[in-house]
Amino acid sequence: MTAARTDTATLTGANLVGATDVPGAAGPFHATDPATGADLGPVYREADDATVARAAELAAAAFESYRHTGFGPRAAFLDSIAREIEALGDVLVDRVIAETGLPEARVRSEIGRTTGQLRLFAEVVREGSWTGARWDRPDPQRSPLPKPDLRQRRIPLGPVAVFAASNFPLAFSVAGGDTASALAAGAPVVVKAHPAHPGTSELVGRAVRAAVRAHDLPEGTFSLIHGGVDTGSALVRDPRIRAVGFTGSRRAGLALVAAAAARPVPIPVFAEMSSVNPVFVLPGALAERGARLGAEFVASLTTGVGQLCTSPGLVFLADGPGADDFVDAASAAVTAASGAPMLNPGIASAFATGVRRLAATEAVRTVATGTDAGAVCIGVPQLFVTTGERFLADRDLQEEVFGPASIVVRVTGEEQFAALVDELEGQLTATVHAAPSDRELARALLGKLELIAGRVLFDGWPTGVEVGHAVVHGGPFPATSAPATTSVGSRAIERFLRPVAYQNVPDDLLADEIRADNPLGIWRRVDGAITRD
Amino acid sequence: MTAARTDTATLTGANLVGATDVPGAAGPFHATDPATGADLGPVYREADDATVARAAELAAAAFESYRHTGFGPRAAFLDSIAREIEALGDVLVDRVIAETGLPEARVRSEIGRTTGQLRLFAEVVREGSWTGARWDRPDPQRSPLPKPDLRQRRIPLGPVAVFAASNFPLAFSVAGGDTASALAAGAPVVVKAHPAHPGTSELVGRAVRAAVRAHDLPEGTFSLIHGGVDTGSALVRDPRIRAVGFTGSRRAGLALVAAAAARPVPIPVFAEMSSVNPVFVLPGALAERGARLGAEFVASLTTGVGQLCTSPGLVFLADGPGADDFVDAASAAVTAASGAPMLNPGIASAFATGVRRLAATEAVRTVATGTDAGAVCIGVPQLFVTTGERFLADRDLQEEVFGPASIVVRVTGEEQFAALVDELEGQLTATVHAAPSDRELARALLGKLELIAGRVLFDGWPTGVEVGHAVVHGGPFPATSAPATTSVGSRAIERFLRPVAYQNVPDDLLADEIRADNPLGIWRRVDGAITRD
Repeated sequence: MTAARTDTATLTGANLVGATDVPGAAGPFHATDPATGADLGPVYREADDATVARAAELAAAAFESYRHTGFGPRAAFLDSIAREIEALGDVLVDRVIAETGLPEARVRSEIGRTTGQLRLFAEVVREGSWTGARWDRPDPQRSPLPKPDLRQRRIPLGPVAVFAASNFPLAFSVAGGDTASALAAGAPVVVKAHPAHPGTSELVGRAVRAAVRAHDLPEGTFSLIHGGVDTGSALVRDPRIRAVGFTGSRRAGLALVAAAAARPVPIPVFAEMSSVNPVFVLPGALAERGARLGAEFVASLTTGVGQLCTSPGLVFLADGPGADDFVDAASAAVTAASGAPMLNPGIASAFATGVRRLAATEAVRTVATGTDAGAVCIGVPQLFVTTGERFLADRDLQEEVFGPASIVVRVTGEEQFAALVDELEGQLTATVHAAPSDRELARALLGKLELIAGRVLFDGWPTGVEVGHAVVHGGPFPATSAPATTSVGSRAIERFLRPVAYQNVPDDLLADEIRADNPLGIWRRVDGAITRD
Repeated sequence: MTAARTDTATLTGANLVGATDVPGAAGPFHATDPATGADLGPVYREADDATVARAAELAAAAFESYRHTGFGPRAAFLDSIAREIEALGDVLVDRVIAETGLPEARVRSEIGRTTGQLRLFAEVVREGSWTGARWDRPDPQRSPLPKPDLRQRRIPLGPVAVFAASNFPLAFSVAGGDTASALAAGAPVVVKAHPAHPGTSELVGRAVRAAVRAHDLPEGTFSLIHGGVDTGSALVRDPRIRAVGFTGSRRAGLALVAAAAARPVPIPVFAEMSSVNPVFVLPGALAERGARLGAEFVASLTTGVGQLCTSPGLVFLADGPGADDFVDAASAAVTAASGAPMLNPGIASAFATGVRRLAATEAVRTVATGTDAGAVCIGVPQLFVTTGERFLADRDLQEEVFGPASIVVRVTGEEQFAALVDELEGQLTATVHAAPSDRELARALLGKLELIAGRVLFDGWPTGVEVGHAVVHGGPFPATSAPATTSVGSRAIERFLRPVAYQNVPDDLLADEIRADNPLGIWRRVDGAITRD
């Protein structure tokens, strides 16, 4: 493969610790082409404790300077990262394809998503209201005590550790949403690369480093280290790390949460973990368009070989007119679908195990299986059916099977819909399909679903997360460890900030965002009222 | 005492579980008058597990209705609680004095603070921007994929458990800031009363209950239970409780954090715990006004017999001109100060132990002791002195001694100031006193102090927390368990909210705050821009 040749020549296998390439000292590993099973060079080695500590030390040293960068220069830095990534061109595209098996169109669109996120956060930084600036003006005449001058702004927590995900090798990886929002907040970042795409990680890491250098920022503003559980655990325990961003499995996420809580000074972990993204198809919608919905569902389910956090793993179908049409159309679509390579052997094997577990469960029936092309790492779409009653009796049926498998649950009556929602764990998304005749049931369900999900959809499919200001990619536990936050969209910056109040501090000792004359012209809250004055 | 007579007649000793008085079943206890040591009736009994569960059950049942109250009615409810508390008049004042030993003026001012907080949150609810409403408008023409309609608002987490503090029997107790902000957010509240002022708690609890009834709200909107560690632990473990507000000791706060993290579904604990509130007096300020600052310091230290979270427990003094004047004036003020009754025997005994520990520490020297009136529960002001070098060698010197004791640390040179800040734990406040000649040292110190404190003061004293929009009563661990939040001021409402996004949900199924035509006329973010349109 051309890609592999290019990469092996370009890539070094080193950890990028500030401005220095540091060869790893612990266990060697390499990427695998999931489409062929072939090894991809170069050999990477996991960062040892000394390398982790050095990255954290540089990040702490960079913090004092980086957090004071003006909004304009910081935004320009984020824009530069986007440009450096674009400049990688086909070298990056080829390497991502080789390491992940993702199709080229998806890879190119994910590059666009990643650079778009960086530019969104550049805009957010420039706009300035992310600082949450507030001013309660003084009243020296107040009796019995004078009213003090109080200003408030948000400041970054300190160096942030970012754990990259495997399923979005760009958008949730080295320069993905966690990194972009942390850098936007004024926090240096140490990324722990995902071992499934080390070459992609190194390419993007070098792009970020080039931007750091171009903007004369301290080298510790960004580091990239390779490794597994031990490396990650050392990073989270390092006292200089002040917050953690993570996207991945529930088990790994909860291990980080526990490690962070056990520190002498605990730190927040923003972990996006697991979700089965329930979809509710109401009677009217089914009667009106059951077959079409069944086909749309499978299109959503098989997007990215089901390897999306928002893949619809559970569909609750009102038993009655159109329900069979839905199941028939979905079954036909699954049967017609070919298996495709999954991201890596670990994911493929976990998917196969999950599918076997479901197939062997008496409460569910396998109704359709896609074509198995027989290649390595293949993920073959699977469709199962069960009843509401059986689902209520077996909590394990809502366990996430990461990949293109889903269970259709045939629901009897409105009360069972409500009972089923009450059984569900916290979710990233929940979806309702309704016709006009379903309006009141839809209203009742939406009212329940907003309590268990971060994003509620109507007449749509959960895959595809829009990056913007109003999106929430988060949700109640175990979808995330921090339900009040989002890891996608402009609000993601808030995770890495903390408010500070300044009482009677003279104007010339204050940051621009809270000076009396509002030199940055940003939106603030003055005596409780939102204003730009 | 008249107060005790009045109370015994009015009070029942019951838990207020929704609309029902439920006598406790576990260990009996009663309040003590700290000024006389006399028992105060009636006898209270701790809530057993069944009572805790019943309060949580009622709160969960109330949630669905209470969270949908309109902003106007919810604000009116908060205003009513304030009026009901005021209507208690002298019965409340007398009981607070009897149970806490606080002087009448302080009690009356704390009633004003408490009702002021309730009215502030009423205003916040009416103003509406606390919902964080956002709208990214759709673009059906966007290619390759149409852009969806996304709205975002914040919704309450669910029933909140509030743990009352002993040192503010009103403002941080039954209807204090935690309760006011949770109710403002749309969350029902179950308060675990502080056992040191059960009668005050019952009076205020009945006032809240009267407001619940007057506004036809579900009874579970508010419950008040009595008890200690076991009761509190059962409350935090109840699956229907979704967040915890707490003000108290580090040990108790960390126990709640651990209990909440160990639940099958963990919940956030907003615990305000411990702080020694360091004050830095720079060379110019000392030379200019050393004696005056010394006297002001002791006035702050002895406010409320030192039983404030923001009491200045550490003063870092630039050794040189004016330092002796500061210490002499402070010593004189402490010597002239009389001991006064502390809130309860437990606090008085912990204070005495802390003072004995410091007095026996070789690294510190006792320079002044107030007059011991010899009464029960007395807290006698104490002043200790040490050097920067000794402080750096003994981390235990920054352990909080809750009460009117403080250590003056004589600091040698600017570098030692910086080194000392690096040794400090997270704090609620940090203060700098500076003259114009100190400007650059002040700037450097403020830059370091904002990283370890929630509120930074200039030329003032940390006691006295202004309730408003810009204040932060919070700070890095161990000052709080949730450094990104504040427990005082309008931002306290944010602790009990979580954002939800709505994708393509029809306008008539959405809440008013995110409807297209903005019927509430609130500030929102539309396509990223702040607007009232």
